[in-house]
Amino acid sequence: MKTMDMLNAHPRRSTLDLTVVTECVNSLVECADVCTSCADACLGEEQVQMLTRCIRLNLDCADICQATARVLARQTEPAPLLLRAQLDSCAIACRTCAQECEEHSEMHQHCRICRASCLNCEKICQEMLSRLSEGSRTSLL
Amino acid sequence: MKTMDMLNAHPRRSTLDLTVVTECVNSLVECADVCTSCADACLGEEQVQMLTRCIRLNLDCADICQATARVLARQTEPAPLLLRAQLDSCAIACRTCAQECEEHSEMHQHCRICRASCLNCEKICQEMLSRLSEGSRTSLL
Amino acid sequence: MKTMDMLNAHPRRSTLDLTVVTECVNSLVECADVCTSCADACLGEEQVQMLTRCIRLNLDCADICQATARVLARQTEPAPLLLRAQLDSCAIACRTCAQECEEHSEMHQHCRICRASCLNCEKICQEMLSRLSEGSRTSLL
Amino acid sequence: MKTMDMLNAHPRRSTLDLTVVTECVNSLVECADVCTSCADACLGEEQVQMLTRCIRLNLDCADICQATARVLARQTEPAPLLLRAQLDSCAIACRTCAQECEEHSEMHQHCRICRASCLNCEKICQEMLSRLSEGSRTSLL
Repeated sequence: MKTMDMLNAHPRRSTLDLTVVTECVNSLVECADVCTSCADACLGEEQVQMLTRCIRLNLDCADICQATARVLARQTEPAPLLLRAQLDSCAIACRTCAQECEEHSEMHQHCRICRASCLNCEKICQEMLSRLSEGSRTSLL
Repeated sequence: MKTMDMLNAHPRRSTLDLTVVTECVNSLVECADVCTSCADACLGEEQVQMLTRCIRLNLDCADICQATARVLARQTEPAPLLLRAQLDSCAIACRTCAQECEEHSEMHQHCRICRASCLNCEKICQEMLSRLSEGSRTSLL
Repeated sequence: MKTMDMLNAHPRRSTLDLTVVTECVNSLVECADVCTSCADACLGEEQVQMLTRCIRLNLDCADICQATARVLARQTEPAPLLLRAQLDSCAIACRTCAQECEEHSEMHQHCRICRASCLNCEKICQEMLSRLSEGSRTSLL
Repeated sequence: MKTMDMLNAHPRRSTLDLTVVTECVNSLVECADVCTSCADACLGEEQVQMLTRCIRLNLDCADICQATARVLARQTEPAPLLLRAQLDSCAIACRTCAQECEEHSEMHQHCRICRASCLNCEKICQEMLSRLSEGSRTSLL
């Protein structure tokens, strides 16, 4: 991923820590990719009826992570309130999906990988949120 | 739009009022379309430098409305906490975009239409949120 | 949908027939919405194993229609070759999805509605493609 | 990215070379991310009027790469004709965007990175297309 290179080449430098922004964008993009694949792998399982909740949450989480990655990657004219609400919703989507994937982690390797990816993404969204709050307290945003 | 027909044909009927769900999905889909067009119309204006914040918020709002419409349209194995957080974030995105479009409404017809579409979408997201809270109070969800 | 109003408010008027562009954008947006709902309705069916190909094609068709709608809605600095290739791919996605939905149309109302929406969208993409070819022959693009 | 791990964990193994599929999905996802960032960086430039065509093509390319990545990542019940048409359209989107970014590569580092990412993605889409044709000649699909 060229996320850091692109953030560094941006004409309007963010006051945010670009290492954290990069890590968060990359985790969101990876989580969206993994959730799309997990929905598809679940759909290919013989016991697909057992996995309908997992597929549904995978699809939601993929859509939400993808939208959040785009909003976070944009550095021109930032809108912190909007970004915070979207990161907050994304953390919930990741946690909900991870909880469901955990139910199937013993049986399915794809759910095991997806759970780890969702938990990682949730954690980094929370870290990003705490950086945004600091920024707002010190008037950087 | 065939949203209501599809919701009625769904094997697992929601406990939510399908008229409100339909209206909310349609407003989200329309708002995403209008915001995509407003970003593009702003980009085509001679005074595009005056409109960079508007373009940025249009792009965010389009991405967020589109993801929210997909999450809301899904009726199998609903996840109310996730849906509420996403509707909440979407209402903020619509309000933020409407406020910026208002700045350019006297000058640009596309910003005037986009502002109305965003305000309408915000209102219906709030209405949907209040229905979800009622549902949760009366244990319907 | 406010598509026509937005196209009319655009600072750079297309040489294309805006009625056809509007109809095509609206059909794409509707087809994306219907396919998202059909995937979800299939997922909620007891006999979901019979519907895995349908779900997969619904998801593909929703993603492709949504991307195509955005590309077509943009009127600033058009790129006709790119637009044609994307409309062509979208017509194939709609036809493939319609063929699969037809297999389940007697059993499932949601597949019947989805088939009709996909066939309609394919037809309008083809109509849009023939307009683009005319435009290119008469040097309008 | 966990793309290869997810493809290996899939219950229905593709007849395609998973190394090539992984490389193509990753290039598509990276190109979508880079194009989203390039549109935003162009929007933040003082000379944004010079970059309107670049922004428009960045947005198209991001949307098309994202849809193509999802279609390609799905391994359940593949639809080769649909996949080929979408990869073909995506290669055109990447080439068109790379050509425009080249115009601004001396001036803007973000356009230089974006051009390289688009050219790489186009090349890998073409490689994927040639593998799909081989597969079809030897009846693997």
